Amino acid sequence: MGVIGRLGSPHIEDSLAQVHRVLVSKQCEVFVEAGSAAMFENQAIVGVNAATIRTCDLIVVVGGDGSILGVARDFAASNIPVVGINRGSLGFLADIAPQEIESQLERVLEGDYRLEQHFLIQQTVVRNNVKVHESTALNDVVVSSGSLSRMMEFRLWIDDEFVYDQRSDGVLIASPTGSTAYSLSAGGPIMHPGLDAIAIIPMYPHTLTSRPIVVPGDFEIRVEVGADTHGARTSSDSQVDFELEAKDVIEICKFPHELRLIHLSTQSFYEACRSKLDWGSRLGLRRD
Amino acid sequence: MGVIGRLGSPHIEDSLAQVHRVLVSKQCEVFVEAGSAAMFENQAIVGVNAATIRTCDLIVVVGGDGSILGVARDFAASNIPVVGINRGSLGFLADIAPQEIESQLERVLEGDYRLEQHFLIQQTVVRNNVKVHESTALNDVVVSSGSLSRMMEFRLWIDDEFVYDQRSDGVLIASPTGSTAYSLSAGGPIMHPGLDAIAIIPMYPHTLTSRPIVVPGDFEIRVEVGADTHGARTSSDSQVDFELEAKDVIEICKFPHELRLIHLSTQSFYEACRSKLDWGSRLGLRRD
Amino acid sequence: MGVIGRLGSPHIEDSLAQVHRVLVSKQCEVFVEAGSAAMFENQAIVGVNAATIRTCDLIVVVGGDGSILGVARDFAASNIPVVGINRGSLGFLADIAPQEIESQLERVLEGDYRLEQHFLIQQTVVRNNVKVHESTALNDVVVSSGSLSRMMEFRLWIDDEFVYDQRSDGVLIASPTGSTAYSLSAGGPIMHPGLDAIAIIPMYPHTLTSRPIVVPGDFEIRVEVGADTHGARTSSDSQVDFELEAKDVIEICKFPHELRLIHLSTQSFYEACRSKLDWGSRLGLRRD
Amino acid sequence: MGVIGRLGSPHIEDSLAQVHRVLVSKQCEVFVEAGSAAMFENQAIVGVNAATIRTCDLIVVVGGDGSILGVARDFAASNIPVVGINRGSLGFLADIAPQEIESQLERVLEGDYRLEQHFLIQQTVVRNNVKVHESTALNDVVVSSGSLSRMMEFRLWIDDEFVYDQRSDGVLIASPTGSTAYSLSAGGPIMHPGLDAIAIIPMYPHTLTSRPIVVPGDFEIRVEVGADTHGARTSSDSQVDFELEAKDVIEICKFPHELRLIHLSTQSFYEACRSKLDWGSRLGLRRD
Repeated sequence: MGVIGRLGSPHIEDSLAQVHRVLVSKQCEVFVEAGSAAMFENQAIVGVNAATIRTCDLIVVVGGDGSILGVARDFAASNIPVVGINRGSLGFLADIAPQEIESQLERVLEGDYRLEQHFLIQQTVVRNNVKVHESTALNDVVVSSGSLSRMMEFRLWIDDEFVYDQRSDGVLIASPTGSTAYSLSAGGPIMHPGLDAIAIIPMYPHTLTSRPIVVPGDFEIRVEVGADTHGARTSSDSQVDFELEAKDVIEICKFPHELRLIHLSTQSFYEACRSKLDWGSRLGLRRD
Repeated sequence: MGVIGRLGSPHIEDSLAQVHRVLVSKQCEVFVEAGSAAMFENQAIVGVNAATIRTCDLIVVVGGDGSILGVARDFAASNIPVVGINRGSLGFLADIAPQEIESQLERVLEGDYRLEQHFLIQQTVVRNNVKVHESTALNDVVVSSGSLSRMMEFRLWIDDEFVYDQRSDGVLIASPTGSTAYSLSAGGPIMHPGLDAIAIIPMYPHTLTSRPIVVPGDFEIRVEVGADTHGARTSSDSQVDFELEAKDVIEICKFPHELRLIHLSTQSFYEACRSKLDWGSRLGLRRD
Repeated sequence: MGVIGRLGSPHIEDSLAQVHRVLVSKQCEVFVEAGSAAMFENQAIVGVNAATIRTCDLIVVVGGDGSILGVARDFAASNIPVVGINRGSLGFLADIAPQEIESQLERVLEGDYRLEQHFLIQQTVVRNNVKVHESTALNDVVVSSGSLSRMMEFRLWIDDEFVYDQRSDGVLIASPTGSTAYSLSAGGPIMHPGLDAIAIIPMYPHTLTSRPIVVPGDFEIRVEVGADTHGARTSSDSQVDFELEAKDVIEICKFPHELRLIHLSTQSFYEACRSKLDWGSRLGLRRD
Repeated sequence: MGVIGRLGSPHIEDSLAQVHRVLVSKQCEVFVEAGSAAMFENQAIVGVNAATIRTCDLIVVVGGDGSILGVARDFAASNIPVVGINRGSLGFLADIAPQEIESQLERVLEGDYRLEQHFLIQQTVVRNNVKVHESTALNDVVVSSGSLSRMMEFRLWIDDEFVYDQRSDGVLIASPTGSTAYSLSAGGPIMHPGLDAIAIIPMYPHTLTSRPIVVPGDFEIRVEVGADTHGARTSSDSQVDFELEAKDVIEICKFPHELRLIHLSTQSFYEACRSKLDWGSRLGLRRD
């Protein structure tokens, strides 16, 4: 059983320690990821490396949705179920509230949960026919000029068909999981988690006719950086960042492995939207 | 002193009666508008007509923002200050909560308030060079196909300059007051109440390049209904409705008189936006 | 072989006659739909009814995309391939230009074409547990207040899960085929024709937090008209229109049969978007 | 008479030289800005500094709208009329086509033109009560996180009234002149050049309820960078860029001097929109 906390986050030691205590008390063999182990007061806890975590049969993440994004990228290929203790502000992915750690981890150990599959997006950057970067994203890949209010040029291909040349601040490619995250701010549609699709969202395009496009999830998207575009970047989940050069090609497709996420609440996707996107509110913005 | 309630609204008699009681107790001469008089249990209260209301030096409206829209259209030309008791859900315009009627009306009678000027929009429909309709709007004028998912064609002129021909569901012309109402749902910008401007919002246009336009408040807007467009309509504040014919011309400009609205709260415009448009909320829609 | 023209359209007789001539010259047995037969100068051409058209092995439609919508609704259940002569302004669906009728129909008869499947949306209106209306749509179903600038209330369910209560002008449910039509004007995403999905687009909602939602194509959408909403309507492809009553339930799901549309051009979906949505243009709207 | 070319732009020497020739032939005393002088083949042309340019009674700019932005920032305080030779792709501001240089400059010298006033926005960055940066913008000021897909926190004040706290990619403040530039890509409204107003556009905000706000032109806008926001930047017209620190305060208001721009074409603002924003096009995106 692996335990991972959000690095650099000072306020989660208590939850980390509690998770550890609960799991040990349940006779689990617990491995704490090296970076997280340093956060324990208990000096006896020795951290393990990622390879050891990959042998676990459950990963408990303490942090917010952002921490789950990181774990998804690092461990999705291992197909280990992941459960999140929510110490962040989000909670679309991390399901267990800190005050429920004991009772909810018990449910997890008893198998009393729902497993949700989330596909990841893989991006590969190719430069002069050589692969120079590869990363995965649970939410989104953002190819951008590197700076707001600077433009980049790129050419978009979908499944080897030419889509358009565009001047814009960039382009965002989102999974259904990511459709309620940054993509939503950028004007993308909400996609049901059960939808096998990828959305392509132009970012402040230099044309009024470019709109979000949703394509089948097994389509391959290719973004070619313009010959005169310097300083552009590509990122995965806003956490991994890679500097692009002119003429770089970014290939984006579904990652072969999915994140297997444990959900304990009975909250439906729409319930989550209602509470987190504030759908319930009736705003005072129109006539009676 | 005039008192007006929202017609057809069954739940405001108590507030109406209380307003009447308070004003009479303060030695005011009170005139109740005929339609509202019928809502009093007290049979002794005899309604007066609009002409008499126009001689008053204050109008108290019981209802929601919608009732204020009606009073604005009917009485703005008389320049009488208006104060609203808010029995609706809105409250951008109607400022007094029902439970504060007594204390707040006292403040009004003592002159302890802030007077806000709201300009109105006047629309005139011309058919074969003859004026066939005229109405005023506090929020907005909506020229539409008469039905969602049906299109109309119109030609837009601003200050005698040709703007565009458009096929769309219609066009919405909003005042700053209306910019937080229907216009906002339709994608229009929020305009500060102190701005002397009018916004023109295309409604589901048959082009991706048409966007909201904001022009100086003293510009004249002219909408010419297409020769093949039948069944179109124009409305003022969604309350007055007029059926258009092909080739009708709708002339829209500022009305010479403004609504003089009494505000008692010290709430700023932005405070109202924060609470009513829910700006305060931090939504759970992005990464940590 | 069935031939159908756009009713009430005066400028297509020449194309209709040419289609007839070409098909007859190729030894086809040609049946002309009754309404269209009336458009022929040649009095010898006798119209047939829909049942006979359903026995054909090809339907040629003369008109625009709108005519194809009509044929799709009427004949999709028969699984007959349909090809369109484009006399309208659209051309997303109708592929053959009038000047190419002879050469292109030859290709069709030789089987030299690409067949594209377009799923249809079926809507069923249930009132007091009784089915009172049923229709199919190729593009979209629009449940609306019946009038712009009037609001309706409805409750949305997806696959029996409650989504939200909403006050708005209405809600638009679009297929991928419809995603480049009215839905796009209403702010919906473009969906690739190969995507098995349905989009739900709120129309001028009385809240700022409601956004387009895309769900898997086999989900069932249910719209319940509010108890106080009178005069609402539902339409299929803006061509079929049905008046709703308060508390009516509109059930929307995929229709079991698909439109089998013949395409002759090698134009890809993105090429169509580039030319028809004007993606190619570089607008002069930003700094150098 | 001053002449300024776009620095670093290799393709404008011919127009620069032609402007010089025409002006000299008309007996004008011509001063060429130092940077531009280096672009002349004619070694006899000696550049002058900005101070000398400020003594001229006309400035001719060769370049695109971007070059005019630069000149506006540098010379607006001198109130010298400016005319642009358009070698860029835009042309909202630069009015003379390269092939018309001779005839149009003649008109300018004869006073046969229309003078348009464009106000500028001034931004001042205050750090620990000390002014650390000041710049002016013709189009827009963009306060941003410094990178797409990274968020910043800021607090917005307008005329000393608190508006909101926001997490977003940044905020764009646009003049009417800038409303058809980057602001339009970012979802801002088009503002008529004659409108005395400033628009505030949230950039990918972490909330769905934040919308563009238009306020009177003489309002002062204040953006306070969040205490935890590092690496943010502010820019003027995307040309001047300044790195912000946490808690920096950006004060934005109208600049006391306006750009006095010479227009020779009789093209109205709406004509410019029609041609440059492609309003004329009827897109093929809806049913017939």
